[in-house]
Amino acid sequence: MSLFDVVRARVRIASMVNRTVLDPSATLGGLCGNDVFLKAENLQKTGAFKFRGACNALMSLEREEGLRGVVTASSGNHGQAVACAAARLGYSAVVVVPVDASPAKVAAVEGYGAKVIPWGTTSLERLDKASELVRQEGMTFIHPYDDDRVMAGQGTIGLEIIDDLPDVDAVLVPIGGGGLLSGVATALKGIRPGIRVYGVESERSNCMYRSLHAGKRTPLERIATVADGLRTTIPGERTFEIARRLVDDVLLVREEEIIEALLFLLEREKLLVEPSGAVTVAALLSGRFPLRHRKVVALLSGGNIALDRLEEFLAARRR
Amino acid sequence: MSLFDVVRARVRIASMVNRTVLDPSATLGGLCGNDVFLKAENLQKTGAFKFRGACNALMSLEREEGLRGVVTASSGNHGQAVACAAARLGYSAVVVVPVDASPAKVAAVEGYGAKVIPWGTTSLERLDKASELVRQEGMTFIHPYDDDRVMAGQGTIGLEIIDDLPDVDAVLVPIGGGGLLSGVATALKGIRPGIRVYGVESERSNCMYRSLHAGKRTPLERIATVADGLRTTIPGERTFEIARRLVDDVLLVREEEIIEALLFLLEREKLLVEPSGAVTVAALLSGRFPLRHRKVVALLSGGNIALDRLEEFLAARRR
Repeated sequence: MSLFDVVRARVRIASMVNRTVLDPSATLGGLCGNDVFLKAENLQKTGAFKFRGACNALMSLEREEGLRGVVTASSGNHGQAVACAAARLGYSAVVVVPVDASPAKVAAVEGYGAKVIPWGTTSLERLDKASELVRQEGMTFIHPYDDDRVMAGQGTIGLEIIDDLPDVDAVLVPIGGGGLLSGVATALKGIRPGIRVYGVESERSNCMYRSLHAGKRTPLERIATVADGLRTTIPGERTFEIARRLVDDVLLVREEEIIEALLFLLEREKLLVEPSGAVTVAALLSGRFPLRHRKVVALLSGGNIALDRLEEFLAARRR
Repeated sequence: MSLFDVVRARVRIASMVNRTVLDPSATLGGLCGNDVFLKAENLQKTGAFKFRGACNALMSLEREEGLRGVVTASSGNHGQAVACAAARLGYSAVVVVPVDASPAKVAAVEGYGAKVIPWGTTSLERLDKASELVRQEGMTFIHPYDDDRVMAGQGTIGLEIIDDLPDVDAVLVPIGGGGLLSGVATALKGIRPGIRVYGVESERSNCMYRSLHAGKRTPLERIATVADGLRTTIPGERTFEIARRLVDDVLLVREEEIIEALLFLLEREKLLVEPSGAVTVAALLSGRFPLRHRKVVALLSGGNIALDRLEEFLAARRR
């Protein structure tokens, strides 16, 4: 996967995705001693960056291939993104979810017209079921991150950042499986290798941090972070290789810093961001970001948080 | 006040203000049968469009005049906007607020470095105090809406809308004193008279609606709306004349529709908007907007709502 793939992805998906705003934040800049800009992918269609990768993957298919349908195994932002992109292209989509998936998430996926199959409780069981559909019905599996087309789609965010802020010094990116990080790093470093790219993880879900320090993909045994979009036990094979080559450092943030960042973004920046999407701002607010006097972009990866959960965070802030 | 004034204002304030995003909303479009775009002035500096008018008014002053200081009498978004614009230009600012103003609003104004003078409880008493400062100390009074420089500043939003959506059919604008409506209507109709401009008021604070129907400025006796930014008892002299000439219609929305729109914008569009700023979306969601199959812009005027208040709205939605 190269800069060329990202540039082609941008042209391919241009008519489908929102070109999201790069919003300057004087308040956050003052607090961390940098010029800070927020890349608001919470304002992307389906409420998260995942729509870019899903669009690029689906629009890369031959029409005939697409008409046999697509399948994925995520009930989160990737599942919604695949469902929405498929609906717009006239393809059918199947999303395999755990039998105990939240009714709200199932409803969101079904709302885009996709078929939901509740199956098992582990990701392995769901992947088996998805493989079965690929074998028996000729459907195409769309991996949430370890796929060049998906990574290239996410990378288009990097191109937009450079267009809007040509002299950007550093970009902070949340890490789940690493697809967003790999795509954005490929775009940024491909254009100007001097741009620093930092991944950000919760210290309670730090598989990329551990893997990079160990020099090999290292699985986590336990994950317990409020940032549900970042709950990955092991980086992807491809994403790990790219991160190892291109990423300057991985910053870790604490759980309470994530919630504080989420509330800061709501109160001061008027943006609803989900916990996973707020980790980059948590790194800036907590002082864990090492640079000063630079032009820094914090990527807000998504805004899909239930209002009930937001209400809990608001209530908890007074305790 | 003409299109020419708005164009000049745009150049004057360009380096000070955020060029806010025009965010497409497929969900809202589907619900009301139009192509809908949200002009997100909640992402403006100080959290509301008022910063544009304040910048244009202050940057229109002679340097010497500015150095004598500026004064206004609003503790809301206009007070914060004047305080912030003055601080950036190196001018001193005084904001006269009622003695019972909320500590949070006073703190926000003081946070921008302005001096706060608590004085009386009625707007008449505050205006008297402000006039005194103008007479005795040579300060310049900045009216929240009935001032050509302020209206022209707000009108720059209209220019940005046409730039981003040249074939826009209709624009919905919240009405407080009418400065935003007058400025935006002057810009839009000045460029293309066929663009329809709709004002939106709460039915509990409908002074422009009543005044236009009566053919003269008509004061309200009672105001009791959740939309605190729209609590005006009588339209401005200038704003009324412009609205009478240029505005196609005024739509009224109910209190519960405003809160519903605020929660919709939060949950589906990931934007925190204050009640006053959500009235335009309330008009679309409630079916009170009369057109279909058009390109429609709903102006979200600001996002300054206390988290405590948001928490109340969230809690009340389950009752």
